[in-house]
Amino acid sequence: MRNLDGNNSSKLRSEIAAGNGLLDRRTLLRGALLSAGIAAAAAGAVDAQDIAGAEAPEWMKSPGRPFSAYGTPSRWQEKVQRIFTIAPGRAGTGVSRTPLHLMEGTITPAGLHFERHHNGVPDIDPSSHELLIHGMVKRPLAFSLDALMRYPMETRIYFVECAGNSGAYGAPQAAQITAGEINGLLSCSEWTGVRLSTLLAEAEVNKDAKWVIAEGADAAAMSRSIPLEKCMDDAMIALYQNGEAIRPEQGFPMRLLLPGFEGNMSVKWLRRLNAIDAPVDARDETSHYTELMPSGKARQFMFAMGAKSVIVKPSFGITMKGAGLYEISGLAWSGAGRISKVEISADGGKTWALAALTGPVMPKALTRFRLPWHWDGKPSTLMSRATDEAGGTQPTRAKWVAEYAPGQGYHNNGIQSWGIEPDGTVKNVYA
Amino acid sequence: MRNLDGNNSSKLRSEIAAGNGLLDRRTLLRGALLSAGIAAAAAGAVDAQDIAGAEAPEWMKSPGRPFSAYGTPSRWQEKVQRIFTIAPGRAGTGVSRTPLHLMEGTITPAGLHFERHHNGVPDIDPSSHELLIHGMVKRPLAFSLDALMRYPMETRIYFVECAGNSGAYGAPQAAQITAGEINGLLSCSEWTGVRLSTLLAEAEVNKDAKWVIAEGADAAAMSRSIPLEKCMDDAMIALYQNGEAIRPEQGFPMRLLLPGFEGNMSVKWLRRLNAIDAPVDARDETSHYTELMPSGKARQFMFAMGAKSVIVKPSFGITMKGAGLYEISGLAWSGAGRISKVEISADGGKTWALAALTGPVMPKALTRFRLPWHWDGKPSTLMSRATDEAGGTQPTRAKWVAEYAPGQGYHNNGIQSWGIEPDGTVKNVYA
Repeated sequence: MRNLDGNNSSKLRSEIAAGNGLLDRRTLLRGALLSAGIAAAAAGAVDAQDIAGAEAPEWMKSPGRPFSAYGTPSRWQEKVQRIFTIAPGRAGTGVSRTPLHLMEGTITPAGLHFERHHNGVPDIDPSSHELLIHGMVKRPLAFSLDALMRYPMETRIYFVECAGNSGAYGAPQAAQITAGEINGLLSCSEWTGVRLSTLLAEAEVNKDAKWVIAEGADAAAMSRSIPLEKCMDDAMIALYQNGEAIRPEQGFPMRLLLPGFEGNMSVKWLRRLNAIDAPVDARDETSHYTELMPSGKARQFMFAMGAKSVIVKPSFGITMKGAGLYEISGLAWSGAGRISKVEISADGGKTWALAALTGPVMPKALTRFRLPWHWDGKPSTLMSRATDEAGGTQPTRAKWVAEYAPGQGYHNNGIQSWGIEPDGTVKNVYA
Repeated sequence: MRNLDGNNSSKLRSEIAAGNGLLDRRTLLRGALLSAGIAAAAAGAVDAQDIAGAEAPEWMKSPGRPFSAYGTPSRWQEKVQRIFTIAPGRAGTGVSRTPLHLMEGTITPAGLHFERHHNGVPDIDPSSHELLIHGMVKRPLAFSLDALMRYPMETRIYFVECAGNSGAYGAPQAAQITAGEINGLLSCSEWTGVRLSTLLAEAEVNKDAKWVIAEGADAAAMSRSIPLEKCMDDAMIALYQNGEAIRPEQGFPMRLLLPGFEGNMSVKWLRRLNAIDAPVDARDETSHYTELMPSGKARQFMFAMGAKSVIVKPSFGITMKGAGLYEISGLAWSGAGRISKVEISADGGKTWALAALTGPVMPKALTRFRLPWHWDGKPSTLMSRATDEAGGTQPTRAKWVAEYAPGQGYHNNGIQSWGIEPDGTVKNVYA
């Protein structure tokens, strides 16, 4: 364990939780360091001179802007937008990512929720849209949006993560790109809708049915085979996202939501659910969303997303402003349930400290973790490792890569690392 | 207790929780009614004919819309916007309300968060904005946004409610307006920021200081006196709202957030915190936000919002579609902490049933409640009554009105009632 620089090293030493300056997660809550004046120096707060005589800023001198029917972000936040791999304005298949490195908390505003479209965003007239439940059922049923609105609903906060998220982390060389570019096929919303099991019970699914084929009303007719067991568990027909009607890019007027499963299966613009006794080998479960193994065989139907975490503060694109006190902050999640712990290392994985999990820790939802860190200004490697309540934990990147054929890009939940350089720049590194 | 119509009355009878058709809150979760086919009849689901041969809808026949940098709601949702008392586009003082009756869940998207401005929305350059802490402190401090960004943060879901919310409910005659028009000075967000106690500890507040005067950087220089005790408790300098930078209408780049206190005190565009030994009688705590009593005296500094609830489904503007099964749904909240229970009456307060509280029940946050109801098609009066973990509960409207001078419009948390007429229309009634 290293000594810390400065006058307050004796106070800090008692708070050390792991090597290279990681402090106990309760340190700052107790206010001990803050009252010692360390934070003031670290944060660059300055003495206020002649406060009473300070002139009011320009924006206090005339009335401000008017009321608005539907608000938008500040014009000073224009760079906080979804990250494209193809130019905005182009339709068809592709993705846009959530800029995780520019955000805080756990909820994703709908306007920044990642997009994954297979043939653009359909403009569906909700009064003409129906959800059909058919196939191996006693009573085929058609539900209008008005009909679904009368059903009992539930409200839950869940993440949605694309199976291909963090695929870039499998590349042979570490790409110097942001945490959002690597991991931004990941968003988290409060979803409200009708439990699918309620509707399937009403249709009376034949006992020989084992799968449900979900089909979207987009121009790709995106389809996936869903195990009936999941449909009867926590699957939801989501109608609302963060309090308002689900957005067009996320499936307006309704989407399937399979908490914890790879995002592609939560079929958007949901049109049909066909109960059947075997999966159909749809295009998006054969040509995509399978895992190529070193043997040359591919694993299919690996549904649940693994335990995973990413540090977003600091991360690539954020420059550290000299040695001192920082808060390390990031996101953790698991398709298996609640996050039970997140550990952080500042010495490349030699020693680990327990991060604080802030706010209510909900199953299959993003969890924000935080830990205070006294950076001594020397080269450092930051890592985070999440463990879920089912005992799942993140493998090292090397272990993850070794499990698959080269280039396999789905379900990458290897431990990620950021290298901090003495000049304060942050690099994506493989450690 | 009344009999229920229809073939399934014997099944339903065992689920009855209170008079006039209120069912046990666990009824639908068990699926008992649904598998009996009641829901299908109630919800208007129809048999699907010739599903395989059904023609694909128009929007599946050509590629959809392109990706977008920052998403917006569906064009089919244009009526879901903030409710104005003055015309949109007009600056100055006033309010806009959240359309609660058109929403679900508990989170308010920032674009629909209610507005209360005293002289418009300032357009603040965040790089020029500073938060000053001064007055009876050992070290006056100035914090830039960059400086605050380095402090330890916390993430919490909290409601914000204007003290004048539901003021219309005190009018002598029940106004025929929506639940949002009555109660929409109420929103709920995930807020992320720095605990104010952290910053005050650093400034070292003099032990004789008892209050902090918070001042906004708007053209009204909106100011309120805040008890120091609250500032050292759960008060936050909020920088993020639902994951992104706080919106201009909600205080960009930073606001004071006082969980559970009347919204006016959570000063937006926060510029100065002045530690002092007595309140200053600011304009907005003398001319407004006081409670006129029958004696002619006014109560001042009634900070915490009381236990409260409102049924939004059904509510004025929603027409019931005949006798049958419905879900009653609404919002409950309290400035004193968690909601411990919500009771619903369908017979004007004679009998009450316990509603289900869905999702995690968090302190000082909106809580969604739900209860299944078999409406027999006859005139009915729906009410909800919230109780919080501190034991606070809603008074009847009559009791609330009797406590104050006529026209006193602040902190109205009386029990609200909706009258259901045989033709399915819903009216605001005083019961």
